[in-house]
Amino acid sequence: MNPEENLAKLGLALPAPGKPVAAYVPTVRTGSLVYVAGQLPFVEGKLPKTGRLGENVSIEEGQMFARQCVLNGLAVLKAEIGDLRKVKRVVRVGAFVACADTFADQPKVANGGSELLQQVFGEKGRHARAAVGTNALPLGAPVEIEFLFEVE
Amino acid sequence: MNPEENLAKLGLALPAPGKPVAAYVPTVRTGSLVYVAGQLPFVEGKLPKTGRLGENVSIEEGQMFARQCVLNGLAVLKAEIGDLRKVKRVVRVGAFVACADTFADQPKVANGGSELLQQVFGEKGRHARAAVGTNALPLGAPVEIEFLFEVE
Amino acid sequence: MNPEENLAKLGLALPAPGKPVAAYVPTVRTGSLVYVAGQLPFVEGKLPKTGRLGENVSIEEGQMFARQCVLNGLAVLKAEIGDLRKVKRVVRVGAFVACADTFADQPKVANGGSELLQQVFGEKGRHARAAVGTNALPLGAPVEIEFLFEVE
Repeated sequence: MNPEENLAKLGLALPAPGKPVAAYVPTVRTGSLVYVAGQLPFVEGKLPKTGRLGENVSIEEGQMFARQCVLNGLAVLKAEIGDLRKVKRVVRVGAFVACADTFADQPKVANGGSELLQQVFGEKGRHARAAVGTNALPLGAPVEIEFLFEVE
Repeated sequence: MNPEENLAKLGLALPAPGKPVAAYVPTVRTGSLVYVAGQLPFVEGKLPKTGRLGENVSIEEGQMFARQCVLNGLAVLKAEIGDLRKVKRVVRVGAFVACADTFADQPKVANGGSELLQQVFGEKGRHARAAVGTNALPLGAPVEIEFLFEVE
Repeated sequence: MNPEENLAKLGLALPAPGKPVAAYVPTVRTGSLVYVAGQLPFVEGKLPKTGRLGENVSIEEGQMFARQCVLNGLAVLKAEIGDLRKVKRVVRVGAFVACADTFADQPKVANGGSELLQQVFGEKGRHARAAVGTNALPLGAPVEIEFLFEVE
C-alpha cells in the first residue's frame, strides 16, 4: 500500500510543502505522534477563493478546498517523516468551515478531506473527527483543517 | 468504582453507540489514548432541538445537550474499549457551543457535560477543557463535544 | 536555557496560576504530554477588555491578550510540572480569536502568543498551531488559547 501511488491513481500529486503564514511550524513530532498545523487550501501559495459556505462558496467548492487542505497537510507530513508509507494511522482531523450562521452542512464539506484520506491510506485513513462551523478563518479562507497522525 | 453503576445511580444509561454522520469513525485508539470524534446531542438518532444559545436555546437546555454529548461519547468509547472501568483519565474535552454573537456563557453550558464526567468517573473525570462559541454547528446542533481519554 | 529567566529579560513574570472558570482542571498530564485547558487573558482575575477583533479590539490589543493567555498557560503548566525547564517541546497551540465576520487576521493575533513562546523556549518553543476565528468566547473574551506540551 503506497499512499503516493494511491494519490497518483486519483490524478493527484503532493504540492511543495507550504510555509506557515505566521510564527509557528507546520509539523511537530512527539513520540509516535505528528501534529500538523491547521492547513488552509492554498494552491501554489494562493487561496483560490475566499468567503463562506452558505454564502458565496458552494458545498462542492468547500469539498474541493477540504481536499486541498489534506494535500497540503500530507505535503508537510511527508517533509517531516520522509515517506507517507510510515503513516500507521490518521488519528484525528479537526475541520473548521467558515460559514453563514444558518449553514448546517459542515460534515459534507469536511467529507471532501476525510474521503481523500481514506482513498490514500485505506483502513489506516479512518480517523476521528471534529467538524465545526466558524464565522471567520485566516485570510478569508473557507476551510481550515488540522491533523494528527500516528507514524512509525 | 464502576462508571456505569454511577450512571445508573444518576438515573442514566448509555445509549446504543451512534454512527458518525459522515466519512469518519467514532473512535481511534493510539497507544493508551482514545480520541472520540465530535459528538452531537442525538437522542435515538435525532437532535431534540436545533438552534443557538442566546437565541432559541436556553442555558439549561444547552447543559442537557452537553450531557447528552457525554453519554453519546461514553457509548462509543465503551464500544472501543469494552468496559468503562478501563478509563484511567478523562484527559481533554473540546466543547463547541453554537450561539449568538453576544453569548458569553459557554462555560456554563459545557459544565453540563464536565460535571457528568466527574460524577461518572470521580477524580479520574477531572479534565482539561477548551470551551468556545461558534456561529454554526453540524445539522443545526446547539452543542458539539469531542473527547480524549487515557485508558488501560 | 531557563525559560523564566527569558521571561524576566522580556520584563515579564508568571502570574499566580489561575483557577478554571468552571468544572474542569487547568492541566492534565498523560505520559510525557501535558494538556493545558483553554486560557483566557485574565490579568489578576479580570479580563482587561471584552469584545471582538475587527470591532472594538485592535490587532495590537489582540496580540497583547494572546501574550497574556500564554503567561497564564505557563503559570498553570509550572504548577503542574514544577519547573519550566522540564519543557521538552511546545507541541501544539490552539488559538481562538473572537472576531467580526469579515476579520481575516487571526494569525497576526495568535502570533502575539506564538512569538512569546519562542522567545521563552527558543527552538523548543516552535509549535504546530491552529488559529481560527469564532463569533463569541467565554465571558466575552477576545482570545482563548489552549496548549499541548511535551515534558520531561
